[in-house]
Amino acid sequence: MSQSSGRPAIRPEQHAARLAGAQALANAQGLAALLIGVGADLRYFTGYNALPLERLTMLMIPASGAPRLVVPRLEAAPARGCAAAAAGHVEVSTWEETEDPVALVARLVHGIPGNADDRGIRIAVSDRLWAMFVLRLQAALPLAHFTLGSAVSRELRIVKDPEEVELLRTAALAADRVIEQIATGRLAGRSEADVSQEIRDRLVAEGHDYGEFAIVGSGPNSASPHHEASGRVIRPGEPIVLDIGGPLAGYGSDTTRTIWVTGGDPALGPDPEFLRIYELVWRAHAEAISAVRPGCPAESIDAVAREVITDGGYGPQFMHRVGHGIGLEGHEDPYLVAGNAEPLRAGMAFSIEPGIYLEGRYGVRIEDIVICGEAGPIVLNESSRDLRIVDG
Amino acid sequence: MSQSSGRPAIRPEQHAARLAGAQALANAQGLAALLIGVGADLRYFTGYNALPLERLTMLMIPASGAPRLVVPRLEAAPARGCAAAAAGHVEVSTWEETEDPVALVARLVHGIPGNADDRGIRIAVSDRLWAMFVLRLQAALPLAHFTLGSAVSRELRIVKDPEEVELLRTAALAADRVIEQIATGRLAGRSEADVSQEIRDRLVAEGHDYGEFAIVGSGPNSASPHHEASGRVIRPGEPIVLDIGGPLAGYGSDTTRTIWVTGGDPALGPDPEFLRIYELVWRAHAEAISAVRPGCPAESIDAVAREVITDGGYGPQFMHRVGHGIGLEGHEDPYLVAGNAEPLRAGMAFSIEPGIYLEGRYGVRIEDIVICGEAGPIVLNESSRDLRIVDG
Repeated sequence: MSQSSGRPAIRPEQHAARLAGAQALANAQGLAALLIGVGADLRYFTGYNALPLERLTMLMIPASGAPRLVVPRLEAAPARGCAAAAAGHVEVSTWEETEDPVALVARLVHGIPGNADDRGIRIAVSDRLWAMFVLRLQAALPLAHFTLGSAVSRELRIVKDPEEVELLRTAALAADRVIEQIATGRLAGRSEADVSQEIRDRLVAEGHDYGEFAIVGSGPNSASPHHEASGRVIRPGEPIVLDIGGPLAGYGSDTTRTIWVTGGDPALGPDPEFLRIYELVWRAHAEAISAVRPGCPAESIDAVAREVITDGGYGPQFMHRVGHGIGLEGHEDPYLVAGNAEPLRAGMAFSIEPGIYLEGRYGVRIEDIVICGEAGPIVLNESSRDLRIVDG
Repeated sequence: MSQSSGRPAIRPEQHAARLAGAQALANAQGLAALLIGVGADLRYFTGYNALPLERLTMLMIPASGAPRLVVPRLEAAPARGCAAAAAGHVEVSTWEETEDPVALVARLVHGIPGNADDRGIRIAVSDRLWAMFVLRLQAALPLAHFTLGSAVSRELRIVKDPEEVELLRTAALAADRVIEQIATGRLAGRSEADVSQEIRDRLVAEGHDYGEFAIVGSGPNSASPHHEASGRVIRPGEPIVLDIGGPLAGYGSDTTRTIWVTGGDPALGPDPEFLRIYELVWRAHAEAISAVRPGCPAESIDAVAREVITDGGYGPQFMHRVGHGIGLEGHEDPYLVAGNAEPLRAGMAFSIEPGIYLEGRYGVRIEDIVICGEAGPIVLNESSRDLRIVDG
């Protein structure tokens, strides 16, 4: 695709290093094998962006020995064409329509030296593997102990490679352009759903793989953080929360801006309380970002934002964590939330998105994607965080 | 959304009946409760199309008593607004960012009369619940036995309500229009990926929720059944397999047509072997459809198509089952595959999609969505199955 030219690509030796890293961690954690289904972990280790279907696709990474990718035969061509398989870092096994792929995986596990009996072995499955596979694997390996694969994969994925940072930046700047296009376009008189569809189309036009989400919360709907764009028509004299994003070459964008629509009538500008909560969220956002540096606990960033908003009198109206990690998944480790004392490390990527929500009235949220750099925060988004008051 | 006007809607009493049906089946199967995560089951029972995120959203349907929907507080508004909650058929409980939602669900299970101790109770989880929730629920209910929720939900979902059939028809006809638009447009000289993006855009323009998949397999790529559209440029003198679809108001379309592109040069028409395999697939498709009626085993439909193709000498080149059920999921029960003796019932919906794939050369597939009617097959797609030879 011409759109992809110039984008950084993950090199085969990176996949090899990731697989070796997983094996080292599996050994350190006493795991016999990692069993990875379709999703971000699979893509991370192999470059294979498999279809999320009911036919089992599974990467088995044994603690030692060659990783093996098990796929339905009708997907042999794309599986063999993925970066890690093409480079010879994983071997591909196919199964036929009338075979039981879970039994095949169990045989592969039993084939790992020392695992012929599954008694007491530890198997890690990818966090988003479906129950239909988890329970069948448990039945096929009844004496094994099952744990979550994120114990391994998060340790690798949580610190981004330079190429991953560049892909996140590319996605962030694409989302910025969409925010700019929407903020300068017509809004009053249109339904949230209509604006939401325009956002999704524009995300694709700006290079996204697809328009994954486009929250458009107008007026009182802006007070619902995960509002689904509805048929409600946007009116002059109210705010809109736009929370948009999706993957670009697999790596997520996720940005939020809150704008005020006047419809061209200067009498329909924001009221004093809206300006007050906007300023609080703006300050919470800025101070939380400023606090980012290697070594500080993830929860401390949440606390910085929360203190600003709580001191301003709106603590209970900021009812969500301040941020989440982002990469091949839109939400991933690290979570910036009370209770998570994990120290930030250089190369971690996450959102900073404080908000204040006054039920039945309106809400404000500002969100950027931030990298924890060696010397402090690196903010990937570039669009202004100041309140935009638009005719709309 | 104006697009949705005129579409049949699922009425609240249908959600109530589905929930009651689930409770009756749970009792018959000795289940204490069904625990249903985000996805098609949740939408089926409640109308709630929740975001597939890491914060737990879970519908608990106890064998008796009121169903309860557990959601993160920041999604309280959309959860309370879903059809079943708005009608009072499920109660909504919210959890805060620093709470453990799995512990909350475990307390709800323990609160079901007779379940205070989880020893020996049977809990069914939805088939696509993520391992991160499955393993945590198993740890929180360590003495319970976990099974798959499809034992209940498939029995209900497998026979479509009349409204669901109409939604499937609406989706099928929308996909037909896209096939027509693509087949009559320019193809030669464009990349598969470019055509694929046009298909996704057109699926949305024709009313789909989003363009979920758009396989464009040109030339030798048409021999890979689940080919991912690539940068390969379509040339005159080769076939293209178009396999497209996605949800419309939640219900899937999925149709495949194989067309031949000449580029306007009559010398670049299909060769005799292509015509031969097209005719075999065409006949396998027609005969399989004709065989559909209540009572016949699902696998017999596969066998009908397979016999045509095997007799024609291409059995090994038809390496996938003939079809899959469709509804709120693109692939669901019943699967028309060898080994599945389940009798078809009136109201079942599924694809019929035989194919022949000659590796390195080309492939052919024809796919329609079919309802098992009381008197025989009801084919929802209307676009011609005859070979189209287009200038492209």
